[in-house]
Amino acid sequence: MAIAQHHLCALESIAGEKAVIPASVSQAHLTEWRKKWPGQSPLLLAPGTTEEVSAIVRYCHEHSIGITPQGGNTGLVGGQMPQGQILITLKRMRKVRDVSPLNNAMTLEAGVTLAEAQNTAKEVDRLFPLSIGSEGTCQIGGVVSTNAGGVNVIRYGNMRDLVLGIEAVLPNGEIWNGLTALRKDNTGYDVKHLLVGGEGTLGIVTAATLKIYPRPRETVTAFAALKSPQCAVDLLNFMQGQTGGLASSFELMSQPLMTLVSQHFDGLKSPLETITPWYVLMEFSTGQEGQLRSGIESALAEAHGKNMILDATIAENEMQAERLWALRHHAAPAMAQDPASAVKCDISVPIHYIPNFLQSADEVVAAQQPASRVIAFGHMGDGNIHYDVLGPSDAAQSDFEAARPKMQLEIHDIVASLDGSISAEHGIGIFKRDELKIRKSETELAMMRAIKNALDPKGIMNPGKLL
Amino acid sequence: MAIAQHHLCALESIAGEKAVIPASVSQAHLTEWRKKWPGQSPLLLAPGTTEEVSAIVRYCHEHSIGITPQGGNTGLVGGQMPQGQILITLKRMRKVRDVSPLNNAMTLEAGVTLAEAQNTAKEVDRLFPLSIGSEGTCQIGGVVSTNAGGVNVIRYGNMRDLVLGIEAVLPNGEIWNGLTALRKDNTGYDVKHLLVGGEGTLGIVTAATLKIYPRPRETVTAFAALKSPQCAVDLLNFMQGQTGGLASSFELMSQPLMTLVSQHFDGLKSPLETITPWYVLMEFSTGQEGQLRSGIESALAEAHGKNMILDATIAENEMQAERLWALRHHAAPAMAQDPASAVKCDISVPIHYIPNFLQSADEVVAAQQPASRVIAFGHMGDGNIHYDVLGPSDAAQSDFEAARPKMQLEIHDIVASLDGSISAEHGIGIFKRDELKIRKSETELAMMRAIKNALDPKGIMNPGKLL
Repeated sequence: MAIAQHHLCALESIAGEKAVIPASVSQAHLTEWRKKWPGQSPLLLAPGTTEEVSAIVRYCHEHSIGITPQGGNTGLVGGQMPQGQILITLKRMRKVRDVSPLNNAMTLEAGVTLAEAQNTAKEVDRLFPLSIGSEGTCQIGGVVSTNAGGVNVIRYGNMRDLVLGIEAVLPNGEIWNGLTALRKDNTGYDVKHLLVGGEGTLGIVTAATLKIYPRPRETVTAFAALKSPQCAVDLLNFMQGQTGGLASSFELMSQPLMTLVSQHFDGLKSPLETITPWYVLMEFSTGQEGQLRSGIESALAEAHGKNMILDATIAENEMQAERLWALRHHAAPAMAQDPASAVKCDISVPIHYIPNFLQSADEVVAAQQPASRVIAFGHMGDGNIHYDVLGPSDAAQSDFEAARPKMQLEIHDIVASLDGSISAEHGIGIFKRDELKIRKSETELAMMRAIKNALDPKGIMNPGKLL
Repeated sequence: MAIAQHHLCALESIAGEKAVIPASVSQAHLTEWRKKWPGQSPLLLAPGTTEEVSAIVRYCHEHSIGITPQGGNTGLVGGQMPQGQILITLKRMRKVRDVSPLNNAMTLEAGVTLAEAQNTAKEVDRLFPLSIGSEGTCQIGGVVSTNAGGVNVIRYGNMRDLVLGIEAVLPNGEIWNGLTALRKDNTGYDVKHLLVGGEGTLGIVTAATLKIYPRPRETVTAFAALKSPQCAVDLLNFMQGQTGGLASSFELMSQPLMTLVSQHFDGLKSPLETITPWYVLMEFSTGQEGQLRSGIESALAEAHGKNMILDATIAENEMQAERLWALRHHAAPAMAQDPASAVKCDISVPIHYIPNFLQSADEVVAAQQPASRVIAFGHMGDGNIHYDVLGPSDAAQSDFEAARPKMQLEIHDIVASLDGSISAEHGIGIFKRDELKIRKSETELAMMRAIKNALDPKGIMNPGKLL
């Protein structure tokens, strides 16, 4: 149902002139980069303070007007795309409110980008470890609301694990100041965990207090060629044992991915002569200088002796490390440049089930669409694989299109049979909302609905997403 | 209101003979070790399976009968003490359901003790890091439901951070199987975080899947004498910087605590000749053997040069390390043996505010009860101080008794003014239930109540606790 004009006028006047986004800019907020879920909104607002967000939400609550909060608009499941609701972007809330290296915490407003958050920590000789492809654009509010993951989860956890406290505007417009910087606080339900990963359906995160860490003094980046995913599982276990858990990244990449990256980006190729179906990009880090590299060298030599790896190289300097990382970071851009239609699965399973998952999923693809290419890669150290299937670029394309939903469901069935998740890090949004209903138990769905109804009885917060 | 006899008979028959706790044993479940909150219950049940718990809860839900779940009965705030409700102890649910070193996870039933959980991990060359004084007795279900803390939180987090998934019986009797072993799962609200630390008011945790870690290969335990709490804050920051965050414990102990421990336990005393108001017990650990000790030695030497510490010793072997830890582990027993009445505060503040907190709290005590002794110690690395005030053992005792509530409130006022928590790790239970209402914002309390009403509309789960 359309929002009445007098409500839009009232909201414009509550938000103030500076906060109203002109039509010339609005399209950037209503299109996401895969162009899968076009947004529609009669009014786009960019409030500059928590109080301004609160005033807007209060009015919407009173008049049952739907709201879609938006961060950096980098989400992959359409959660940030309004479908007729007013849009509130947090992009003007950009203050660094506090940085406290002695307490290893910093408080940032929702519109600060992830890259800026990393730099804020760096300026006080600390590390903010979360790192994802979109870090230059995505914003803290969105990163919190989607519980983002990325390449350092194996060591530092997801965004959820890095959030000490949040400030949010609740569905009734009240401001909840939960900006604690405490490591321990057992005073009742830890309600922040509902808003973290809540995809904006329970409130709008306006600021967050985040953990920061001592900066590593030595980082070692290595790249290895392996025979099979099972070798990768064994290698991870072996290297973690040898280093006492110093892996900060452990990324799996398939040969077809490497080929795709090389096709689309000149000069990006494996530094190893060995051609094999699988590769792993690893990074280890420690706070003590000068001891890590030799340890990794001898561990990799031992792993070679045990037939876990066929070959490996260790970056000699930062530039070489960056070249190794470029292979991994160009996975998504290479996929995006490929004209073929794709099935994209962002799944997780217990780590030791990854070989089973890959084998079974490959069988599904081979049976259904033998001409398609499987591009598998991702955060193996967290059990999280991006399993993408690229269709053929020719006449069979429409066949592939038609087969997509069934293929995705069957791959997800495998995930379910291995106690896995159909959305490891990208969330539910619009994309997986229907499927959530068949993947979660009725008991858990009922809990989720009860919580939603309790905190947002009028259903104004990001309606149509997640639940 | 008393529970009708026919309901008790029906529940006995649902639970089965083996599950009914005879009167001869019941007193152990109805008395906690401080004897502050005596329990009353017309029926104590020890179901052996999740299905049996579910059947009991289903009946209680249908007939609006209150339930108090109990773990190892080691809680310090009365949360496990029924006040007329039926009691469900999980002590018969003792299965280790799964241990998976390759996925670094294990699934245990609620009645497994924490010490058994640690040993289960050790058997597969892994570490389950949570460690608290009551670990021989407390049980996983209770440890999850109270989000226990302890001496390794600085490195590994609270229980909340170690829980991957839980199984619980919800207030309506339904079994929620949330036993995921995934590192990443962004499919909706992370409802387990409500039950973790929920003190049994939202359901009964029957099993949990927990993270396990590579075992450290080298551990270094050190003990230092310092001039002031500010020196301890500086030392923590310095040592974490030097080691890249390898501290696994960082415990502050005051001179009066050391004296008290020596008084009550022969032979337990500081290994240092230096007498000073403050001491720190530190532990560092790493997965690589042979490199840590020399690093700690030179770091402590540098800290000495910078006047952060007056003196220090490093344990030469495991026995020496145990002797250092004995000083810390006898803090609570020494307090318990002292006949004097006490004010006990389990507080946390941002780490750099600890010196302010201690100074201001000491001023309150000096002004109100100059004859009392302040015993301050605890998990400084997490900003968590156990600030206890022992009254005089003489005629002034009754004065002290009368002054207790006011003193506690004023100390907590200081905590509040420093953005701290009045219950860092012990929870709310009965003890701090009234005070919670004045410490939390009405906005946050309203969220908590809305969640409680949504998930337990009949209010049968541990009524009278927390909220």
